Amino acid sequence: MPKISQKGQLMPESPIRKLVPYAELAYKKGKTVYHLNIGQPDIKTPQVALDAVKVHSLDILAYTRSEGSEEYRKKIAEYYKKNNIYVSHEDIIVTTGGSEALLFAFGSIMDSDDEIIIPEPFYANYNGFSTASNIKVVPVISKIEDNFALPAIEEFEKLITPKTKAILICNPGNPTGYLYSKDEIKKLAQIVKKHDLFLIADEVYREFVYDGNEFYSIMQEEGLEDYAIMIDSVSKRYSMCGARIGYLVSKNKNVIKTALKFAQARLSPPTLAQIASEAALQTPQSYFDEVIDEYVKRRNILINELEKIEGVKVAKPNGAFYCIAELPIKNADKFAQWLLETFDYNNETVMVAPAAGFYSTPGVGLNQIRIAYVLNETSLIKAVKILGEALKVYKD
Amino acid sequence: MPKISQKGQLMPESPIRKLVPYAELAYKKGKTVYHLNIGQPDIKTPQVALDAVKVHSLDILAYTRSEGSEEYRKKIAEYYKKNNIYVSHEDIIVTTGGSEALLFAFGSIMDSDDEIIIPEPFYANYNGFSTASNIKVVPVISKIEDNFALPAIEEFEKLITPKTKAILICNPGNPTGYLYSKDEIKKLAQIVKKHDLFLIADEVYREFVYDGNEFYSIMQEEGLEDYAIMIDSVSKRYSMCGARIGYLVSKNKNVIKTALKFAQARLSPPTLAQIASEAALQTPQSYFDEVIDEYVKRRNILINELEKIEGVKVAKPNGAFYCIAELPIKNADKFAQWLLETFDYNNETVMVAPAAGFYSTPGVGLNQIRIAYVLNETSLIKAVKILGEALKVYKD
Ligand SMILES: Cc1ncc(COP(=O)(O)O)c(C=O)c1O
Ligand SMILES: Cc1ncc(COP(=O)(O)O)c(C=O)c1O
Repeated sequence: MPKISQKGQLMPESPIRKLVPYAELAYKKGKTVYHLNIGQPDIKTPQVALDAVKVHSLDILAYTRSEGSEEYRKKIAEYYKKNNIYVSHEDIIVTTGGSEALLFAFGSIMDSDDEIIIPEPFYANYNGFSTASNIKVVPVISKIEDNFALPAIEEFEKLITPKTKAILICNPGNPTGYLYSKDEIKKLAQIVKKHDLFLIADEVYREFVYDGNEFYSIMQEEGLEDYAIMIDSVSKRYSMCGARIGYLVSKNKNVIKTALKFAQARLSPPTLAQIASEAALQTPQSYFDEVIDEYVKRRNILINELEKIEGVKVAKPNGAFYCIAELPIKNADKFAQWLLETFDYNNETVMVAPAAGFYSTPGVGLNQIRIAYVLNETSLIKAVKILGEALKVYKD
Repeated sequence: MPKISQKGQLMPESPIRKLVPYAELAYKKGKTVYHLNIGQPDIKTPQVALDAVKVHSLDILAYTRSEGSEEYRKKIAEYYKKNNIYVSHEDIIVTTGGSEALLFAFGSIMDSDDEIIIPEPFYANYNGFSTASNIKVVPVISKIEDNFALPAIEEFEKLITPKTKAILICNPGNPTGYLYSKDEIKKLAQIVKKHDLFLIADEVYREFVYDGNEFYSIMQEEGLEDYAIMIDSVSKRYSMCGARIGYLVSKNKNVIKTALKFAQARLSPPTLAQIASEAALQTPQSYFDEVIDEYVKRRNILINELEKIEGVKVAKPNGAFYCIAELPIKNADKFAQWLLETFDYNNETVMVAPAAGFYSTPGVGLNQIRIAYVLNETSLIKAVKILGEALKVYKD
């Protein structure tokens, strides 16, 4: 029998995938499971986006241009302008989710065995895209004690080698919820310019910024035009993850020209999803205001309730809809499995994402979990209550 | 300024991309351009598919399972059963077009510098996916004199090295229109088993088979279960290229397990497109009968008209909707550009795809073009007439 590739063997599984059978077991036993583990928001998609595909007048569901239609990209450029980001439609390639934008970015700037520095914990699929692209993730640890702020620049510099081609940040962060300050972005700008690296910023949670904080995009930083590659997505912004529309944005013409070749090979991003996503640009501000209010309320409840539990340490998130909590346990993997397999509180339990999967350094974050607050208030309170009860009886 | 990758530099452009500016010039001059260069069918998408998204009842456009919903995959398995292909839904991963299925297949079975043997001329984007995957295409020449039949097995064997991991065929072929016989598939089965290679078959044109010929899938070949990977797509079958739905199908559990990890990294195939594609499975047989009739009519006209032109040689296609024609010229690249830039016949001209872009061996196919018969009869006749007039006056 022919063998699968080494790369295929190295491809990581999603950090929660191995818990799925235990969740199914829990369902079978009739337990209610509160899902604190997922990144799929429960917020309604804007009606204007849902309606747009209902009234489509297509006879032939045809390919669009590989970079997305010019009209749509012009509207995206306007959206950015309102967000103080000045780019032209020619700086934008529409991709199949932010996921594909990441793949195109990696392929455009890195060859086999090249290195990319990423503050950890980071979005787990960066590992998958790196493996698929034959490149090496070099993690730089950010700490729960600092709320996962940017590690000191010296820590980055220590890791830079001739193979280093880029630094990748996620802002606001999944799984940390940390929002980088303007000052931190400026520090990153300096270091990439000094060492001639690209700075990739995954800004798919741009809208989810709380407590009056201001979001500062790498695309706003003057002098960074040739270095900056922004990854964006409609998935979280409009709660339309299933559309599969994202963008790769850069003012570096070589990057766009190169990424476009990857885009051409796969022909076109999904057409119906572009119709919905173009319409989503008309979403009224009130939608976002309500959504942000909702997330702030949830976050406050979550943090409040978590802090009540003895031995739990939480990094307070300023953005996105995740937070990392350190638990008074040794191994969150085992704990998460036990929650599903063995534990119940009035026949209910919770599913959490062990944070080790978000670290690249082995052995780090073993006692941490990521919690996504994509549940409504009542469920969230219940879920944290269950977590607290579980910690009372859990022994490891 | 940081540099783009070598891989990015090597990524090929689409063979017709460089003609686009000349086409735009032709439009500007007010010329009508008949497009014989594209693979986007002009056939209507089945109404049942177009309607399905109009009546969707989604509140949240959410991610689906990374491998596609179980319900949809079960229906796909039924579709295959009707086509004498016996697979379970567990052998199927729903992908973002056949394009993504190819990428997943390459990544699952090949590492950097591994080799894949492909009969040329072949679908040009195989080059792009190979470059993106750091693998090497090893072409084996099939000839217009033989209608592009399978090259002799000895020709394959000469090319097999320890780095060879797979043979890739496209059946029926783009750009050749050639339909492999059962006997040819059996020969391929023997050679991959003998040398422990995978056999990837891109069967996205399966429905487009003419003249009472029978299509024989690699998935029908007994004993090939561990070796066969089928690439499929709704793009051409239902004329819904813009949906971006394809499938990777294999009975080799390791292949599916590995490809699934690539699928998980990018989260989900497009949700709206899955709704449309699931509905498309209800397309009545009459739709296909009409479509096939239409293509046969077009093909007959095209071949007939082409053969009338002095010095033109055509390989008669038995499937898909392309054919390769050899012209009495030296360089089809220059000719194609000249057609757009300089020539007109009553203010009309044609755009063709130079075939060199479908060959991997340099210098082969320079005097050939690919013609897609995705125009209606009248336009097709006009287009070939224009081509004939052009050849009368062209000097190279
Ligand atoms: C940080 C981050 N980047 C990128 C993505 C990819 O999202 P998509 O491909 O749906 O745009 C996600 C999804 O969860 C994410 O959390
Ligand atoms: C032979 C062949 N394979 C694969 C594809 C990819 O199609 P899609 O990604 O739309 O399924 C095409 C499209 O033209 C093709 O001609």
